[in-house]
Amino acid sequence: MSARRPDQLRPVTLAPAQTAAAGGVVITQGETCVLCTASLARGVPPFLLDETTGEPTQGWITAEYAMLPGSTPDRKKRGPDSRATEIRRLLGRSLRAAVDMTKMPGWTITCDCDVMVADGGTRTASITGAFVALAQAVEAARAAGHVTRQPVKGPVAAVSAGVVDGKVVLDLDYDLDSRAEVDLNIVMNHRGEFVELQGTGEQTTFSHDQLQRMLTLGERGIRRLTRQQRRALREL
Amino acid sequence: MSARRPDQLRPVTLAPAQTAAAGGVVITQGETCVLCTASLARGVPPFLLDETTGEPTQGWITAEYAMLPGSTPDRKKRGPDSRATEIRRLLGRSLRAAVDMTKMPGWTITCDCDVMVADGGTRTASITGAFVALAQAVEAARAAGHVTRQPVKGPVAAVSAGVVDGKVVLDLDYDLDSRAEVDLNIVMNHRGEFVELQGTGEQTTFSHDQLQRMLTLGERGIRRLTRQQRRALREL
Amino acid sequence: MSARRPDQLRPVTLAPAQTAAAGGVVITQGETCVLCTASLARGVPPFLLDETTGEPTQGWITAEYAMLPGSTPDRKKRGPDSRATEIRRLLGRSLRAAVDMTKMPGWTITCDCDVMVADGGTRTASITGAFVALAQAVEAARAAGHVTRQPVKGPVAAVSAGVVDGKVVLDLDYDLDSRAEVDLNIVMNHRGEFVELQGTGEQTTFSHDQLQRMLTLGERGIRRLTRQQRRALREL
Amino acid sequence: MSARRPDQLRPVTLAPAQTAAAGGVVITQGETCVLCTASLARGVPPFLLDETTGEPTQGWITAEYAMLPGSTPDRKKRGPDSRATEIRRLLGRSLRAAVDMTKMPGWTITCDCDVMVADGGTRTASITGAFVALAQAVEAARAAGHVTRQPVKGPVAAVSAGVVDGKVVLDLDYDLDSRAEVDLNIVMNHRGEFVELQGTGEQTTFSHDQLQRMLTLGERGIRRLTRQQRRALREL
Amino acid sequence: MSARRPDQLRPVTLAPAQTAAAGGVVITQGETCVLCTASLARGVPPFLLDETTGEPTQGWITAEYAMLPGSTPDRKKRGPDSRATEIRRLLGRSLRAAVDMTKMPGWTITCDCDVMVADGGTRTASITGAFVALAQAVEAARAAGHVTRQPVKGPVAAVSAGVVDGKVVLDLDYDLDSRAEVDLNIVMNHRGEFVELQGTGEQTTFSHDQLQRMLTLGERGIRRLTRQQRRALREL
Amino acid sequence: MSARRPDQLRPVTLAPAQTAAAGGVVITQGETCVLCTASLARGVPPFLLDETTGEPTQGWITAEYAMLPGSTPDRKKRGPDSRATEIRRLLGRSLRAAVDMTKMPGWTITCDCDVMVADGGTRTASITGAFVALAQAVEAARAAGHVTRQPVKGPVAAVSAGVVDGKVVLDLDYDLDSRAEVDLNIVMNHRGEFVELQGTGEQTTFSHDQLQRMLTLGERGIRRLTRQQRRALREL
Repeated sequence: MSARRPDQLRPVTLAPAQTAAAGGVVITQGETCVLCTASLARGVPPFLLDETTGEPTQGWITAEYAMLPGSTPDRKKRGPDSRATEIRRLLGRSLRAAVDMTKMPGWTITCDCDVMVADGGTRTASITGAFVALAQAVEAARAAGHVTRQPVKGPVAAVSAGVVDGKVVLDLDYDLDSRAEVDLNIVMNHRGEFVELQGTGEQTTFSHDQLQRMLTLGERGIRRLTRQQRRALREL
Repeated sequence: MSARRPDQLRPVTLAPAQTAAAGGVVITQGETCVLCTASLARGVPPFLLDETTGEPTQGWITAEYAMLPGSTPDRKKRGPDSRATEIRRLLGRSLRAAVDMTKMPGWTITCDCDVMVADGGTRTASITGAFVALAQAVEAARAAGHVTRQPVKGPVAAVSAGVVDGKVVLDLDYDLDSRAEVDLNIVMNHRGEFVELQGTGEQTTFSHDQLQRMLTLGERGIRRLTRQQRRALREL
Repeated sequence: MSARRPDQLRPVTLAPAQTAAAGGVVITQGETCVLCTASLARGVPPFLLDETTGEPTQGWITAEYAMLPGSTPDRKKRGPDSRATEIRRLLGRSLRAAVDMTKMPGWTITCDCDVMVADGGTRTASITGAFVALAQAVEAARAAGHVTRQPVKGPVAAVSAGVVDGKVVLDLDYDLDSRAEVDLNIVMNHRGEFVELQGTGEQTTFSHDQLQRMLTLGERGIRRLTRQQRRALREL
Repeated sequence: MSARRPDQLRPVTLAPAQTAAAGGVVITQGETCVLCTASLARGVPPFLLDETTGEPTQGWITAEYAMLPGSTPDRKKRGPDSRATEIRRLLGRSLRAAVDMTKMPGWTITCDCDVMVADGGTRTASITGAFVALAQAVEAARAAGHVTRQPVKGPVAAVSAGVVDGKVVLDLDYDLDSRAEVDLNIVMNHRGEFVELQGTGEQTTFSHDQLQRMLTLGERGIRRLTRQQRRALREL
Repeated sequence: MSARRPDQLRPVTLAPAQTAAAGGVVITQGETCVLCTASLARGVPPFLLDETTGEPTQGWITAEYAMLPGSTPDRKKRGPDSRATEIRRLLGRSLRAAVDMTKMPGWTITCDCDVMVADGGTRTASITGAFVALAQAVEAARAAGHVTRQPVKGPVAAVSAGVVDGKVVLDLDYDLDSRAEVDLNIVMNHRGEFVELQGTGEQTTFSHDQLQRMLTLGERGIRRLTRQQRRALREL
Repeated sequence: MSARRPDQLRPVTLAPAQTAAAGGVVITQGETCVLCTASLARGVPPFLLDETTGEPTQGWITAEYAMLPGSTPDRKKRGPDSRATEIRRLLGRSLRAAVDMTKMPGWTITCDCDVMVADGGTRTASITGAFVALAQAVEAARAAGHVTRQPVKGPVAAVSAGVVDGKVVLDLDYDLDSRAEVDLNIVMNHRGEFVELQGTGEQTTFSHDQLQRMLTLGERGIRRLTRQQRRALREL
C-alpha cells in the first residue's frame, strides 16, 4: 500500500474548517479525512448542578462521531450505530482528560467529528483533530470573557498501532487494519501519559511483548502529533 | 448586510470535495457552504422492478439533506427533522428532473447534501451543488461501463428570491431571509423551464405582480448558476 | 373519468363532523373525503414566550395530516411518513396566513386533517376544510371569552392544477394526477393573493406560459371555494 | 347524565362509512362514535405458512384501534400508546372468534377502528362496529371469488357493564365510567357464549354476585346489539 | 405432562432474590420462574399532584414485565412488545388494588417482573410474586420512616384456569396452554373478591357453566397462593 | 469497604441458572451478581454467508448486556443506553476470541448478561460468567450433533484493576471504582495472552509504570478465574 516504514505516521495536515462553530479543523491522515468542530454553549448537564444552589459546579466537554455517507466507497447509511456510540464515548473521555473543567464553570463544549473519508484510523484522527477545535473554542470563550482561567491542560492526541503479518506497525490504514491481528488505540498527552488504551485481538490474542512494542511506537507517534497540534493552534 | 444589488447572486464557488464517493463538490454561496456527494450503487427500489421479470425498468436518483452540528452558531442537533424531510423530497424531485433514468437501468445514485455553514439558501445551494456531484457520478458510471448512454439531460440549478421591505431581492442570505415577507425557491433547467417552484408567504401573502418579478430575477440567477455548473464539470 | 370541463372543480361539500373538538367539518371534493377538526388549547410553543416576562406574545396555529388506513383501496399503514410531514408543514403555514395570531395570545389551535377517502387533492381539500374548522374553533374561543378580537383575517383555500396530456386542468383527481406531467398546488385567500405555491414537474419541466394558465384556473377555483367556506360557516 | 334505566343500552346506530376499504361503518352509541373499516389483502403473516409447502394454511383477521385527535375535548395526541395496544389485541381476538379462518386461506382482513368521539365504551363499540365492517369485507371477498365458503360463523358484539354507586349498570358512558368502581367488558356471540371477558376493579374489588348481575345485563345488551348488526348487514 | 389433578396447582416456591431493590423474590411455579423486584422512589406521576399546592395527593404503584432472552428454548428478543404491554397494565392494576395508596403519599413503588423460565402462567406468577416484593418494599419504607401507616390491604394473587379437551383445569403450563380452548386469568384477594378477570376464547367461545367452574377452581388455588405469600413474608 | 488485600479478588461463585437456554450460570463476585445465559440457534448473520453458494462459512458468537431494574438501589430504567452498547461490543469480541467459529458452521450462540446486582465490575464478571454459559451451550450443540469438533479454544476471563488513592488495586467494587483515578479492564485467556485491554483515565492520566503493575495484578486474578471456570464446567 505504501512505502511507509512500520514506525512512521501517515502524513498529517490540520487545516481550518468552513464552519459556524467556535472551533473547527479538517484533519487529514493519509487518505483519512475528518471534519472536527467545537461548539460552545451556556449550560451543563443536570448532574453537574449543585443540588442545593442549582449552580453549575464545573463545565463539561462532550463529543459526537459520525461517518458522512460519502466517506466510504459503498455509501454509509446515516444514523447512529453501535460502533459510533462506542467511539463517541471514547472521544468524550479523551477530550475531558485534556481540560480542567472546573475552570470553565457553566459552559459546555461539544466536539463533532464527521468523517469525510474513512481510510482507517478515523477514531484516533478524530481525537487529534477534535483537540485542536476544542482548544480554539476555549480561546473563543476566553476572548468573549466567558472563561477567565485557561482550562486546557495540554494537548491530547491519539494513534493506532497493530500487529500485521506478525510485525508491529504504527498508524494502520484501512488496508493494514483489515489484515491486522491486533489493533491498539492509544490516547496520550504530550508528556507521554496514557489517557485511554483500547486493545483488541478480535478472534486472536496478543502477548505482553507485542503490547510493549506497540506502546513504544504509539508514544513516538503521539509526540509528533502533539507537536503538530501546537503548531496548528499557533497558525490557524 | 452587503453591498450586493437586489438582482445579484452572492459569490458562488464549486470546489472538489474530499470524499470516497463517485462524485463530490463543496459549494459556497456567500457564507453558505454545503458538501455535496453522489454515491453510486447497484440496485433500485422495489417499485422500479418489473413485476413479471423482476428486472429493473430504470435507474433511480434520491437525495438526503442534513445540517452538520457546526453549521449554525448555536449547535444544530443531529438527527432528522421535519424541515430536512421536506427539503430532502424537494432535492430528490429536482435532481430526478435532470436525468433520464431509463438510461441508467439498475443503478441508484444517492446525493448527500451536508450543510457546513448555514447562512440562508442552503436548500437551493444543495440542488446546485448536488447536480454537479450527480453528473460526476454519472461520468464515473459511464467510465466503468455501467451506463452506456448519457442519462443527464442538462443542468438543473436553484435559487431563492423574496420580498424584503417591499422590494424584490434575489438569493436571500440568513439576514435577508429573516426579514423577508415572501420566500420563493425556484428550480430551473438551463433552458429556463421550471422544475420546482415553492413560494410561501408565512403569515402574509404575495401578489401576482410580486411573483412575476421574483421569477424574472430567479431565472436570471439560474442562468448564471448553470453556466458555473458547466464550467465546474469541465474543470473538476 | 368524468364529464367535467378542465376548468371546473369537482363537486364540493362541507358538512359538520362528529367530533369532540371545538371545530370540525367533513369536506368532500369528488370522491376525496377529509375529516378536519380544530382543537383549542391554552398554551403556546416555548419560542413564542417573551424571554423576560415568560408571557406568550401571540397565539399559534399548527396542523397535522394523516391518511386513515381505509382511505385507499390497498390499506394505508398508520404512522408518519415523509409525504405527510411535507403536507403537515404546508398546512400549518397556509392556515397561519389566515389568522392574526397576535389577537389570540396564549392559545393554540391544532387542526387535524384525517383523510377518509383519497382520490387526489387531499392536501388542498385539507386546507379548504381545515380553514372552516379553524374558524369554528375561533368562534368557540370568542364565545368562551378566551379571545376578544377577531383573529381571522379571511378565508384561505387551496386547489391543484396540472398539465395532463399537454392540457391545463383544474382540480386533479387521482386518475388525472397519475397522468399529470405537472402538478401545482395553489393556496390563496379570498382576494386572490398567494399564500403558498408549490409546483413540481416530477421528471419533467413546465414553462412560464403553462404556469400562468394554471394560476388563472386556480384563482377561479379558489374564489368558488372561499364562497363555499363562507356559506358553510354561516350555516353549520 | 341521562334518563336511561340501568339495564338499557344507549341508542345505537350503524351507518355506512365514507371509505375506500372493502367494508366500513360508523357506529354511534350515545355520544361515542367510531369509524370502523375493514381492508382485504392477499397474504397472511409468516407463522401461517406451511413450513414445507410455503402455502398459507388459513386466512387471518387483525385489528387496530386509535383515537383521533378530535375525539376528546382536550386534543388526543396521535401515536400508539399502551392502552391502544391492549385494546387492539382484544379487538383482534374477538373478531377472530367470529370467523372460521380456514375458509379464507391466503387472505388477511385488517379492521381499523378510529374513534371520532370518545364518550365511554369505545372498545366495545369498536368490536360491535368492526364486526359489521368485517362481514362486509368478507362479502366483497366472496363476490370477487377470493373466498368460496362463508367464513363468518355469526355476529360478535360487545358491551360494558359496571358497578356505579353500588348499583349494577349497563353500557357506561364517560361520566358513569369515571365514577364506576368496577368495569367489565363482555364480548359475546349471538348464542350468548363468551368470546372475551375483561373485568377490572381498579383499586377496588368485586364479588361473585356483582359479576353475575353484570353478566346478566351484558348478555341482554349483546342480544340487542347482534340483532342490530344483522339488520345493518341486510340494509347497508 | 404431569400427574397433577386438574384442580391442583403446580408446586410453588417463593425464594429471596439477589437484588439491590427494596423488595425481591424469585417465584417458581412448576418450571415457570420469575424474578420479581420492587423499587421504592420518592415522587409520583404528575397527574397525582394537587393542582393548587403541587403536593402529591397519594402514592403510586406501577409494574413492568419482560421475558429474559433465555426464558424460552428459542431465544426471546429483548425489547417491548404488545403482549408485554398488555401484561404490564394488568400487573399495575392488580397490584394497585392491594394497596391503599393514600397511605404512602409522595412515594412510588415500581414492581419489575423478569421471566427467567417461561412455561405457562408467567403473568399470573408475576402478580403473585410481585405482591410479595411489593410488601417487602412497603416494609422497607415503613422501617425508614417514609411511610407511617400500613398501606397494604392484604394479599393479591393470581392463577389461570382453562378448558383443555373439554375439561376444566387449573394453572395451565405451556403444554396445557397450547391445547387450551379457553384461558381465564383470575386475580383475587384473600377474601375471594375479584381484582381482575380476563377470559379469552381465542377462536372459540365458552359457556356460563364453564366460566363458573373455572372461577371455582381459581378461587381455591388463590386461597392457597395467598397463604403461601403470607408465609413467605413472615420468613423472608 | 472490606479487608481485602489490594491484589485479592472478591469471592467468586459460579452457580447454575434457572433458564430455558442451552447454557446458563449466575456469577457472583462480591456483591455483584450477573445472570449469564447462552442460546443456540441455527443461522448466521448475512455477512457470513458465502456469496456464491449462500452457505455459511463459519458460526457466530454475539452478546448482549443489560442491567435489570432492581440491580441498583435507585431503579435502573430499562432500555438500551450507550454504556450498554459499548459493553455489548466488548463482550462479543471477547467471547469470539475464545472460540474457533469455523468449527461450528451455520450456528449462532447469543450470550445474554443480565445484571441482578451491580456493585462494580459487572462487565468483567459478565465475560467470566458468559464464557461458562457459552461452553455449556457448545456442549449442548455437540451432544445434539450440531457441532462435531470442539470449537472452544480455552477459557477467557476478565477482571478490572485500578489506581485508587495512588495505589494499584485489583477487582474494583463500586466504592473503589467511584474513587479510582484509573480503571483498566483486562480480558485474557488461560495462557496469559491478552484478548482485550481497555484502560481509561477519565479526567486524569496514568503512567507506563502504573499500567505494568495493573497488568501484573490482572493476570494473576485471571489465572484464578479461569481455574474457577474450568471447575464450574466440570461440576455444573
